[in-house]
Amino acid sequence: MAVYTDVTAEDLSAHLARYDIGTLLSFKGIAEGVENSNFLLHTTGGSFILTLYEKRVDPKDLPFFIGLMEHLAARGLTCPQPVRMKDGETLGELAGRPAAIVTFLDGMWIRRPQVMHCGAVGKALAELHLAGSGFALTRVNALSVPGWRPLYERAKDRADTVAPNLAATIAAELAHCEVSWPKDLPTGVIHADLFNDNVFFLNDRLSGLIDFYFACNDILAYDLAICLNAWCFSPDSEFDFAKGRAMIAAYQAVRPLSAAETAALPLLARGSALRFLLTRLVDWLNVPPGAVVTPKDPLEYLRKLRFHQKVTSPTEYGLA
Amino acid sequence: MAVYTDVTAEDLSAHLARYDIGTLLSFKGIAEGVENSNFLLHTTGGSFILTLYEKRVDPKDLPFFIGLMEHLAARGLTCPQPVRMKDGETLGELAGRPAAIVTFLDGMWIRRPQVMHCGAVGKALAELHLAGSGFALTRVNALSVPGWRPLYERAKDRADTVAPNLAATIAAELAHCEVSWPKDLPTGVIHADLFNDNVFFLNDRLSGLIDFYFACNDILAYDLAICLNAWCFSPDSEFDFAKGRAMIAAYQAVRPLSAAETAALPLLARGSALRFLLTRLVDWLNVPPGAVVTPKDPLEYLRKLRFHQKVTSPTEYGLA
Repeated sequence: MAVYTDVTAEDLSAHLARYDIGTLLSFKGIAEGVENSNFLLHTTGGSFILTLYEKRVDPKDLPFFIGLMEHLAARGLTCPQPVRMKDGETLGELAGRPAAIVTFLDGMWIRRPQVMHCGAVGKALAELHLAGSGFALTRVNALSVPGWRPLYERAKDRADTVAPNLAATIAAELAHCEVSWPKDLPTGVIHADLFNDNVFFLNDRLSGLIDFYFACNDILAYDLAICLNAWCFSPDSEFDFAKGRAMIAAYQAVRPLSAAETAALPLLARGSALRFLLTRLVDWLNVPPGAVVTPKDPLEYLRKLRFHQKVTSPTEYGLA
Repeated sequence: MAVYTDVTAEDLSAHLARYDIGTLLSFKGIAEGVENSNFLLHTTGGSFILTLYEKRVDPKDLPFFIGLMEHLAARGLTCPQPVRMKDGETLGELAGRPAAIVTFLDGMWIRRPQVMHCGAVGKALAELHLAGSGFALTRVNALSVPGWRPLYERAKDRADTVAPNLAATIAAELAHCEVSWPKDLPTGVIHADLFNDNVFFLNDRLSGLIDFYFACNDILAYDLAICLNAWCFSPDSEFDFAKGRAMIAAYQAVRPLSAAETAALPLLARGSALRFLLTRLVDWLNVPPGAVVTPKDPLEYLRKLRFHQKVTSPTEYGLA
């Protein structure tokens, strides 16, 4: 749940005068996004999302995030489209915070995705990868391999309180990834966080991708590995071959994987599992007293990691 | 900020099949109401609010609250109108909780109300009092005089940590109210919590009243006293005569006060200030560790109480 910055009707109405989207009819703080404050606006011009960027987002990254959504939307991807002010700017300031308004997307996220949803996500991910090419700005992935050891250092002393030998398991996997991580695979803009709650569906058709605040430049196939982890396991962390096959086939129908990408998929999937294991573990070990938000279970990603460690061929993910 | 019960798109879509309001396009948990979970729905039939009633609301009171909104809306008051299901019911169950869907009201609450806003509230309050007559159900006001001593008992031992001699001040005022409280004034359905954030305005016109979850049967003029306290003081708790005069005049234009009601106004205002002083004090002294919500300042109502204690004539509130 987001913590909301307090915005008054008076201040927001004044802010909207900078835009050409009509006058304010209502606005509600919404429980979407844990990093920022989000408001659903109804104006005489339609529905919009107002985002106030809170401390955890580096303001220097905002031109990348907002520019990327604009770049992708202009290329036909259904993602929130930043609304330009009358003076052409997309980033303003409201309640002392950087603020942007984007178009509202219909749709709901699916709690229990089926094979068809995984196929739709694979297709949309490949479309995102193609549409991202040509985007002028770049952003390093702070949560790729070089970012994992600092997370391990923060968690290692108490990791074994979460699961037996967890620190040693992570240390070994981390060393393996650091040594083996592929260096020559195709890179580009990746979403890097395309979990269930960031994909909207309407009547089982994918209606939009949201939350580009982890987007960055990295190995494209790594983004697919993140999605395999996020979408293609059962609730008890068993890999679902039918879902994996559907996702990869739909991805390849838009952007075929090279032989090198295919070969690297098991390693990329291990790295992706390790990345979410590490960030969840750090969050788990650092829950503020009295926090309302329950942290996500890190052990879900330990189970996924163990599956990937046993994979001997990318065909086990459903590659044709 | 509300704590949200988790509702899935799958469950909500199934629930909406009981209604005739179209199919779901989107839904967002909104930061409105501290007692219940609220969601803003977009359907092919329009915008609606879904409320899930949490533990702090007694399910036995729900027919009163929901029936009242329906009764008032049918009499032209702009308040959320409960939507009936195909079988005629207004109260269902979702995610294990009692659930109702009401119409969505445009408008925003005003942070810094002006004289004209206070006039609009006075008029709407009188309209509510007239429209409430004939409503078949009744609900005792648990936060009227008999409910104040138990609050005092919970707070008295630590009250003086909040302000010097606060316990003694409250004890004296409580004794005064218990002895002097009027018994023969006109009663009816009152809102009992018509603060700024429960009144919507659109272009300075009152567009709706919300949050009827303190509504009950009590002295009508007591509701006016609550509004004088909530709306007609400056931010530093000075009574604003122009606002009081505007509110009372607009109220009387719809429902003239009797001589007995007028005479009782200073006492009703004292009681109202004591009631919010007490509930805020109890909340202030019982903030859970790590709570995200900042409790409201009880001393604002101590300052208001002190103003009312010095009032010698109802004309000091702006009565013509």
